[in-house]
Amino acid sequence: MLAICATTTRYNFIGRHNNIVLLSVYMNMKTELIVVGKTTDKHFAAGISNYAERIGHYMPFAITVIPELKNTKSLTEEQQKQAEGEMILKCIQPQDTVVLLDEHGQEPRSIELAKWLERKTTTARRLLFVVGGPYGFSPAVYQRADERLSLSRLTFSHQMVRLIFVEQLYRACTINRGEPYHHE
Amino acid sequence: MLAICATTTRYNFIGRHNNIVLLSVYMNMKTELIVVGKTTDKHFAAGISNYAERIGHYMPFAITVIPELKNTKSLTEEQQKQAEGEMILKCIQPQDTVVLLDEHGQEPRSIELAKWLERKTTTARRLLFVVGGPYGFSPAVYQRADERLSLSRLTFSHQMVRLIFVEQLYRACTINRGEPYHHE
Repeated sequence: MLAICATTTRYNFIGRHNNIVLLSVYMNMKTELIVVGKTTDKHFAAGISNYAERIGHYMPFAITVIPELKNTKSLTEEQQKQAEGEMILKCIQPQDTVVLLDEHGQEPRSIELAKWLERKTTTARRLLFVVGGPYGFSPAVYQRADERLSLSRLTFSHQMVRLIFVEQLYRACTINRGEPYHHE
Repeated sequence: MLAICATTTRYNFIGRHNNIVLLSVYMNMKTELIVVGKTTDKHFAAGISNYAERIGHYMPFAITVIPELKNTKSLTEEQQKQAEGEMILKCIQPQDTVVLLDEHGQEPRSIELAKWLERKTTTARRLLFVVGGPYGFSPAVYQRADERLSLSRLTFSHQMVRLIFVEQLYRACTINRGEPYHHE
């Protein structure tokens, strides 16, 4: 059992307090952002890649792009949500922790998001964040989801949501390590 | 008086309802975003320029960059806020409507922001939005401000705040014109 822990746990130096070295325990949790459709704006795409790379220094992180549906004009909003939902559900394994980026979710402060992420590292094996298509999520996706997070009361473009999210995930990583980015 | 109105008022076609042409009245309100320090990230800078240009199709819009303070290491946070505050106040005329982008402000939904902007066009001559430096605003700036707006409970980098704000201002313009961008 000890051997298993040794291979699945990483310790990160987070600082010193009264000469005691503070270590944070990161399980080898994988994180993934699932999005529908490519990031078409090249400035946004470059910004997203930049933050994704930085997050990779703190924990395994990947972005999965589900191809955008074709011929959506022949579909109702409900049909489009359902078709996208089926593709999203195919990316999810039974043991995954699924978090929808959804306007009806709870809206944390950055510090709260960081604490939440820290807690997840002790319980989740794979933490999946999902940004839906233009009309939101199908009932089946809502049913599978473990949690919902809202980034703001404002409505952002789908491309913007991605950029904001990766910046916040990076920020959460730096907060948990006690690094100065959060106050720069 | 009528002549003055004719030169200072613009009518924008916003749609039809029961065969009545709907026009929105935009006073020639000028809008301006005041920021401290250049946008150093080139991807963000390009994105901000893009939205600023689009906003310009709806109303006069400018971005004023206050130079970043030098030798900030020799200043306390309070001194830095005060020095930035003095430079911000120099950009403000007595008749300006000043709106601080501030985490303690009210957090509107995009539709609410659009309605708020529409109301401002009938009362404000020049609408100034201000993004502060890394430590926020000085008491003098808070005192001069007419309103405070919050974009999210999350803390964003100063560069990110600019991008999010111009996207939301552009979105508000399209909502007020009844254009489809908001639901794309």
